[in-house]
Amino acid sequence: MTTERGHTSAILASKVKGTAVYNMKGDKIGQVEDVVLDKQSDRIMFAALGFGGLFGMGEKYAPVPWSVLSYSKDKDGYIVPMTEDQLKFAPAYNLKDLVKDDGQFGVIRERSYDYYKVPRDW
Amino acid sequence: MTTERGHTSAILASKVKGTAVYNMKGDKIGQVEDVVLDKQSDRIMFAALGFGGLFGMGEKYAPVPWSVLSYSKDKDGYIVPMTEDQLKFAPAYNLKDLVKDDGQFGVIRERSYDYYKVPRDW
Repeated sequence: MTTERGHTSAILASKVKGTAVYNMKGDKIGQVEDVVLDKQSDRIMFAALGFGGLFGMGEKYAPVPWSVLSYSKDKDGYIVPMTEDQLKFAPAYNLKDLVKDDGQFGVIRERSYDYYKVPRDW
Repeated sequence: MTTERGHTSAILASKVKGTAVYNMKGDKIGQVEDVVLDKQSDRIMFAALGFGGLFGMGEKYAPVPWSVLSYSKDKDGYIVPMTEDQLKFAPAYNLKDLVKDDGQFGVIRERSYDYYKVPRDW
């Protein structure tokens, strides 16, 4: 996404929740179940994507770094630039584990940022 | 808030919504109505606080920089370190204006970061 300097656009977290998610082929693969926020910095950690058990994940959600999602006006949803196969093996957790304050959160974050090839800045 | 290096704790946006908010005296002044996210960076812009018309704001919400809120386990809510009087004059907008993509969002952000004396890093 391009960002004009000084220009910022904003969205309500409650509006993100429930938005459809598509893979790079344009197939709908799921929806945003929730947004994971960092309590101690002003950082959005992840969108938690639900695939509706499509990939046999059951109640598990894939934590996808916010910057990986790009919004498509056309589709009125977010596109994750990965194939169906790539998403099949995406790290996924239940929501409770995704925010559990037991030191394991760091591991989840590393796995997710690695998987989507997002540079780490911590 | 203190942040241990490498330690991150996370929370779901849907869990933040509805959480009670207290002033520095410990009086309940309202609740988090929603969280305002930056679409183009991974930044949490504000918590939008609703005061339930207590200050005659009607349907207006105060955009408070995320870093201003500190969570109190005791109160099971967020504390905004300001007096009732200070909060009475806090910048407040309706939710629609708060995320309107018309270039005015920058003005809202400036006003809010000024009001709560949060350093700007943009």
